[in-house]
Amino acid sequence: MSKVVIIGAGGVGGVVVQKCAQVADIFSDILLASRTESKCVAIAKAVKERTGQVIRTAQVDADNVPELVALLKAEQPQLVINVALPYQDLTIMDACLEAGVHYMDTANYEPKDTAKFEYKWQWAYQQKFQQAGLTALLGSGFDPGATNVFTAYLAKHYFDEIHELDIIDVNGGDHGYPFATNFNPEINIREVTAQCRHWENGEFITTDAMSKKASFTCPEDVGTYNIYRMYHEELESLTKHYPSIKRAQFWMSFGDSYLKHLEVLGNVGMLGIEPIDYQGQQIVPIQLLAQMLPDPSSLGPRTVGRTCIGVVVRGIKDNVEKVVYLYNTCDHQSCYKEVGSQAISYTTGVPAMIGAKQMLEGNWIKPGVWNIEQFDPDGFMDDMNQHGLPWKVIELQHFNLDA
Amino acid sequence: MSKVVIIGAGGVGGVVVQKCAQVADIFSDILLASRTESKCVAIAKAVKERTGQVIRTAQVDADNVPELVALLKAEQPQLVINVALPYQDLTIMDACLEAGVHYMDTANYEPKDTAKFEYKWQWAYQQKFQQAGLTALLGSGFDPGATNVFTAYLAKHYFDEIHELDIIDVNGGDHGYPFATNFNPEINIREVTAQCRHWENGEFITTDAMSKKASFTCPEDVGTYNIYRMYHEELESLTKHYPSIKRAQFWMSFGDSYLKHLEVLGNVGMLGIEPIDYQGQQIVPIQLLAQMLPDPSSLGPRTVGRTCIGVVVRGIKDNVEKVVYLYNTCDHQSCYKEVGSQAISYTTGVPAMIGAKQMLEGNWIKPGVWNIEQFDPDGFMDDMNQHGLPWKVIELQHFNLDA
Repeated sequence: MSKVVIIGAGGVGGVVVQKCAQVADIFSDILLASRTESKCVAIAKAVKERTGQVIRTAQVDADNVPELVALLKAEQPQLVINVALPYQDLTIMDACLEAGVHYMDTANYEPKDTAKFEYKWQWAYQQKFQQAGLTALLGSGFDPGATNVFTAYLAKHYFDEIHELDIIDVNGGDHGYPFATNFNPEINIREVTAQCRHWENGEFITTDAMSKKASFTCPEDVGTYNIYRMYHEELESLTKHYPSIKRAQFWMSFGDSYLKHLEVLGNVGMLGIEPIDYQGQQIVPIQLLAQMLPDPSSLGPRTVGRTCIGVVVRGIKDNVEKVVYLYNTCDHQSCYKEVGSQAISYTTGVPAMIGAKQMLEGNWIKPGVWNIEQFDPDGFMDDMNQHGLPWKVIELQHFNLDA
Repeated sequence: MSKVVIIGAGGVGGVVVQKCAQVADIFSDILLASRTESKCVAIAKAVKERTGQVIRTAQVDADNVPELVALLKAEQPQLVINVALPYQDLTIMDACLEAGVHYMDTANYEPKDTAKFEYKWQWAYQQKFQQAGLTALLGSGFDPGATNVFTAYLAKHYFDEIHELDIIDVNGGDHGYPFATNFNPEINIREVTAQCRHWENGEFITTDAMSKKASFTCPEDVGTYNIYRMYHEELESLTKHYPSIKRAQFWMSFGDSYLKHLEVLGNVGMLGIEPIDYQGQQIVPIQLLAQMLPDPSSLGPRTVGRTCIGVVVRGIKDNVEKVVYLYNTCDHQSCYKEVGSQAISYTTGVPAMIGAKQMLEGNWIKPGVWNIEQFDPDGFMDDMNQHGLPWKVIELQHFNLDA
């Protein structure tokens, strides 16, 4: 029986609220807060219809620490689940410290003006949380989140030492549009066009965006996809916490059509973030583009197919090298039927609820700031099977993305 | 020794003025007029530097008949060379009738609100020009223009009867940009995305835009290009004036990159001509796009390669079927060195000067409204060789764009 405050009423927020409401014995009192309270009210209404649970709502500006503190002091929840924008992680952490509330998020802080994912800003809160006797759990979405726990689970149960890690995020979904983005187009495109970094022999190597490509065949007939190496934030924490890792890479699937559209739109300047003058008006090209593209939240009903996200670990067990793949597949239409969102929001929102559940059950409470792989993975993995994201482990005989 | 008024100071206008100035014994007095007189002044300055000839300039609104009449009555030229916008053909013809001046243009009239090239509006002036004792020469650019004369020349000298006509317009130029248009992007894109029509067995057949594609290898190592069947205005007049033609098709080359950009920009709505609302501002996507793309007039210095435009005629001579190809190749950089424009403007501007020259020399004066193939081609063809667009005739042993 715990009270939580969930901050953020986007696609992921909607899933988190719904999944928490499904576990009412743990999440007995849920307040959903966002800058735009009407979004919270709409989610609360949908959750009431689906689960019968009452969700309370509030308006809060997550950039404003005093406003956050006032809300948290008035509510006195056990935990804040932060699914707002990554820009807002630090203000919410500050507010949790001041109000004496545990903290959890799904994506690491990045400054608004540079597309640079780094944990250093949040890791710097380690002492403050320790001294306050509070726990901050970082990155409890799918990737980061489930992928970190998958790695920890394999390291614990399948290996004596892990050497190579490939995190592979395949979205085999088809929304039927020639071009659309699954979440905020600006953030989506910013991520894809950023330089790639991967870990190799003790350091991060920088390469051009999308310059390394491989073909990957998913299990369970999800299909064969082109995947591209790119940087993703869990590489930073996993290589720190598993120093035996010699190489760590993150891969994401992109269709040829998606990449073609990005290339052309970049060529003509439509991805620009600086305002241009059009007949005396100031226009930010990427914002105009975002307005012209299908609304990401409209993709749910029309997206078919499955995601397949997992980790491939190469390592040593009893002096023998082996390669093990731990993955989940998730069907877009099943997600839509259950929570009204497609699998992209679902696969992020479910691990957020599960991470929160571990904390509220006391399994993952330890004063300080922690990445999710620093806690014992077993309870989380059991809950993944129970709450909509079942996983499998298979040993791979032939695995080589360099071929 | 003749006075001409040239209306239109775009890329083609600049070439026409320059080429006329090179033939000062014929074009002894040239007035260049446009809505924006500063453009005329800039052209006049460049021509003075290159040829030493003085070009006079004037401001005129080509949509305004009384204004045009006043200018023509004051100037009393022998001929108006219309290289303004196609929308303005009829007002300029009206003004010529009222002022008693011969008329010539390079592109047929189309109403501003429908992308429909048709000669019917201009052919309707036949009686008026006859009664006024004035000549109107329609379509004296390259295509239409040179391509019509090429057809007439082959029909006159190489065949007893012509049966099939393929007009092939290849631009093998490379401007080094991922995407740019050679002239006004809005008109360019409107032309390319229009439905295709070709002549077959006595009627025009309509097919989807860009739905028929062939590979064509140009002579003189210009290269092999993908060409796409599309509608072009000379098909209407040539099939009328050569009723023996069983099939007539127009083809234009487009690079894969050009088509890819068009497809993507169309998909996301950037080719739209209807205003959309962006933060309370009205934006016409294709106009914003035109502003973001490289200015067509900036392509001259950086475009390399050649154009290759010609006609392939299949017909009967002395009871034997044969296929003959008449073509010109034109080097972008040579054009730029001579007149400061690349070959797209050059190949349109030179035939305009040559058509005007035929009229001023009296060869092509005959009261009424005429398409260029209705006059004897020989003088025009000689002048093409003399004035920068030399041509060749070759017999083709294997020619089949249906393969």
